[in-house]
Amino acid sequence: MTIRMYDLAGADPKCRFSPYCWRVRMALAHKQLLVETIPWRYSEKATIARSGQDRVPVIEDGGRVIADSWAIANYLEDTYPERPSLFGGAGGRAAARFVNAWADTVQNAAISTFVASDMLNHLGPDDRDYFRRSREQRFGMTLEQFCANREQRVGGFRCSLEPLRQTLLNQPFFGGKSPLYADYIVFGGFQWARAISSFTLLEADDPIVPWRQRMLDLFDGMARKAPACV
Amino acid sequence: MTIRMYDLAGADPKCRFSPYCWRVRMALAHKQLLVETIPWRYSEKATIARSGQDRVPVIEDGGRVIADSWAIANYLEDTYPERPSLFGGAGGRAAARFVNAWADTVQNAAISTFVASDMLNHLGPDDRDYFRRSREQRFGMTLEQFCANREQRVGGFRCSLEPLRQTLLNQPFFGGKSPLYADYIVFGGFQWARAISSFTLLEADDPIVPWRQRMLDLFDGMARKAPACV
Repeated sequence: MTIRMYDLAGADPKCRFSPYCWRVRMALAHKQLLVETIPWRYSEKATIARSGQDRVPVIEDGGRVIADSWAIANYLEDTYPERPSLFGGAGGRAAARFVNAWADTVQNAAISTFVASDMLNHLGPDDRDYFRRSREQRFGMTLEQFCANREQRVGGFRCSLEPLRQTLLNQPFFGGKSPLYADYIVFGGFQWARAISSFTLLEADDPIVPWRQRMLDLFDGMARKAPACV
Repeated sequence: MTIRMYDLAGADPKCRFSPYCWRVRMALAHKQLLVETIPWRYSEKATIARSGQDRVPVIEDGGRVIADSWAIANYLEDTYPERPSLFGGAGGRAAARFVNAWADTVQNAAISTFVASDMLNHLGPDDRDYFRRSREQRFGMTLEQFCANREQRVGGFRCSLEPLRQTLLNQPFFGGKSPLYADYIVFGGFQWARAISSFTLLEADDPIVPWRQRMLDLFDGMARKAPACV
């Protein structure tokens, strides 16, 4: 049975940019599960109300509705144990939580300060207003102020990615010889930026770049084929 | 057969402070292996020459000599697979590399800037001279300059530990319900500071503190019983 997934989309329904939705898109492909993605906008909170909260990703699998990327990854692992593992064992699942926490609080928090204002170019009028209003309230400044001087700040961001580089010096994926959910966690942030911004996050010779290329190649180039700004 | 481990020590041979040696001490206890630790000083590089390099931890297990904390953890896991796992599966081993890289480049790099000058109080004359000379060359400044203004800087360090907090909000250990090598990696850094410095790294109400207490309790309080400055 096909799983339905509500996937954050821009005015162009093919523009999919949520880092958390990308984690789940990749996880579903890893599990070789059929999925129908439904473009979803910030203004459509009523559509996912039965998930008990108002953010995507949300999946429907038969009668079950699951929200939150981490919860969805765990649901998929536990519900489809006979399919390729997302965590590679109990230790991998536990450690993936740390990768998840690092990506949320370091990687994605920083990427937000580089691309949040570029988001506006990809949203329809209603979502654009909502996004500006909610984010400016959260950040306590305009989106333009929040993203100012990004060329001067990106060097610090690149330094903060050193744990990625040190890991990839020793193995091709965060999952080891092949990708696991830890890879999809980190990849989601880069895929977010790729979809909506032409700002250069990584230097061309960064060892993270070849890993990102390998990730774009997975699943018959699924992520590479998605509309992108770069 | 008892494993021998060369363990960085201060002028007081009971003062053991290397974060990398603590990773291995904890890993050996986790594997329920008998170990004889041999206090080792920077001035005793000849003693471990047969390891092919000049840093500890180094272990001798029968005729085998292994250096480097990550290599030792992997050796123990592969050589003693019937004993409690350090990684909890292949995915856990792969993801522990990321934890290792984060701890080396973020956590321990920062702790160094708080406690490096306190190290001098715990070393004998030869090691004190070596430590000052080698570190000042590496850092390009005096140890006192390197550790200056630590009270003003510690707030930024505490922020950088947010991935630890987010993880420990959801599970008692980085290994999940019980500790794995990922826990020993992170714990090593705190144990380093505890052995040689009275500087307060964590606020009393930090959610990392109860985890650290649980770690100090492991293996009949092995780490708690070690000489400490706090």
